[in-house]
Amino acid sequence: MDLEKMLNSSPYHRWLGLQMELVGENEVHIKMPYRQEFAGSDEGINIHGGIISSLIDIAACFAMMNATKRDTPNLNLEVHYTRMAAAGDELIAIARTLKAGRTLGIADVEVKNQDGKLIAAGRSLLSTAAPERKTLTKK
Amino acid sequence: MDLEKMLNSSPYHRWLGLQMELVGENEVHIKMPYRQEFAGSDEGINIHGGIISSLIDIAACFAMMNATKRDTPNLNLEVHYTRMAAAGDELIAIARTLKAGRTLGIADVEVKNQDGKLIAAGRSLLSTAAPERKTLTKK
Amino acid sequence: MDLEKMLNSSPYHRWLGLQMELVGENEVHIKMPYRQEFAGSDEGINIHGGIISSLIDIAACFAMMNATKRDTPNLNLEVHYTRMAAAGDELIAIARTLKAGRTLGIADVEVKNQDGKLIAAGRSLLSTAAPERKTLTKK
Amino acid sequence: MDLEKMLNSSPYHRWLGLQMELVGENEVHIKMPYRQEFAGSDEGINIHGGIISSLIDIAACFAMMNATKRDTPNLNLEVHYTRMAAAGDELIAIARTLKAGRTLGIADVEVKNQDGKLIAAGRSLLSTAAPERKTLTKK
Repeated sequence: MDLEKMLNSSPYHRWLGLQMELVGENEVHIKMPYRQEFAGSDEGINIHGGIISSLIDIAACFAMMNATKRDTPNLNLEVHYTRMAAAGDELIAIARTLKAGRTLGIADVEVKNQDGKLIAAGRSLLSTAAPERKTLTKK
Repeated sequence: MDLEKMLNSSPYHRWLGLQMELVGENEVHIKMPYRQEFAGSDEGINIHGGIISSLIDIAACFAMMNATKRDTPNLNLEVHYTRMAAAGDELIAIARTLKAGRTLGIADVEVKNQDGKLIAAGRSLLSTAAPERKTLTKK
Repeated sequence: MDLEKMLNSSPYHRWLGLQMELVGENEVHIKMPYRQEFAGSDEGINIHGGIISSLIDIAACFAMMNATKRDTPNLNLEVHYTRMAAAGDELIAIARTLKAGRTLGIADVEVKNQDGKLIAAGRSLLSTAAPERKTLTKK
Repeated sequence: MDLEKMLNSSPYHRWLGLQMELVGENEVHIKMPYRQEFAGSDEGINIHGGIISSLIDIAACFAMMNATKRDTPNLNLEVHYTRMAAAGDELIAIARTLKAGRTLGIADVEVKNQDGKLIAAGRSLLSTAAPERKTLTKK
């Protein structure tokens, strides 16, 4: 099973419409096109913060799974919202591992819009203690 | 406009199916019944962490709006996942303000399942600098 | 070895002048009288944030050691500064465990001044995986 | 007044023995040689986490002051401890601004030992709303 298949094996990921854009040595990029239910309000001017925090949670996890070839559940999540994402924006999450230890890992995520503007910065601590997945291969 | 109407005025909130259970002096309770798209995986055994972080983001914001009668956008979000929420669980977020200052506020949120077990604990810093909403009244 | 002795067995704790005020069922209180080196500036009007974050780190750890009878190193630390502590203030940290699991625990800390005003709120994730200390007894 | 003078104008900074190593376009480096009171325990094998969180708090603030020419008090602080710092280690904090807005800024800090190993990673949200210091010039 590769990371792209794993990304699509979750009902919530599919609802979010996530697309694996890049799986690199120490980096994954996940793209999220807009859908109307992402709107924070009926005026529909911005993307809801919860959608952005979800994207960060997921990107951090996939960066760590890529680095460790393990299932790596998020233990905590820290998000700073830096700029409102406009309704209609296509967002991309760029996630890298800062540490990938035997029991714990840390991943950093930047969420940017299609113009490269920083929308949010996130960090997550993840458990890396699960046994290695033999079938988890790079894209 | 009351908090309950505001909760229902967001497409994402409606998709999440959020219900305002209680608006108290320094406390709001928001209930979130299960829907299938919340599942973290196709095996469908747990609720996705992004759903839980969304619930925390929203509950923190509503506790602060209730305390300040202002629109109070979240600036940051810190979430600790303490126990896996099972698919099918009905979750409740209990949010309280720790500080509600002139420019900044802090809200604490506990997410519990129907058995009262702690699923996640969150904290959010919010901006309280917007002008007061004359029409924001308690439920 | 009791918690009070442990508190005094660290050179940094002694420099900070920490005093164990209370060891309760799920709560420890640690007092920190003022010393001149705590000043954030030569004008000497406030206590440095690093002193306050140190107090939070320590109080979280002692609450978790009390709950688990183990050495529980801090893995992360989140601090929100809510009010400037004035030079001369005697601060108290009130720490409680939110979770004390087999491998991880979470502790919450409030730092207050002598008037009961909230100076900072902190949360820490700690490792609880170390073997139990047979000699760690309650005060 | 330059940043180096400001670093030395705080009693707590002087006690920590902080040295400004580099003030760059978007980066400050602050060095902290060891002193015995930094020890976490009388066995003296590690540097106390509170010392490291203090260094992160300070480095974040100086990176933001450098970027904004303003006094920029820390509002919050998030620290992940990644590796024990050994007693005797000389630590260096490398701080960069991720955002420097009109009212808020975010700074990232990495603390490394003399071998370049990552000891801790921190992030801080700071207020940037104070008036500009006319006399705050680059080193």
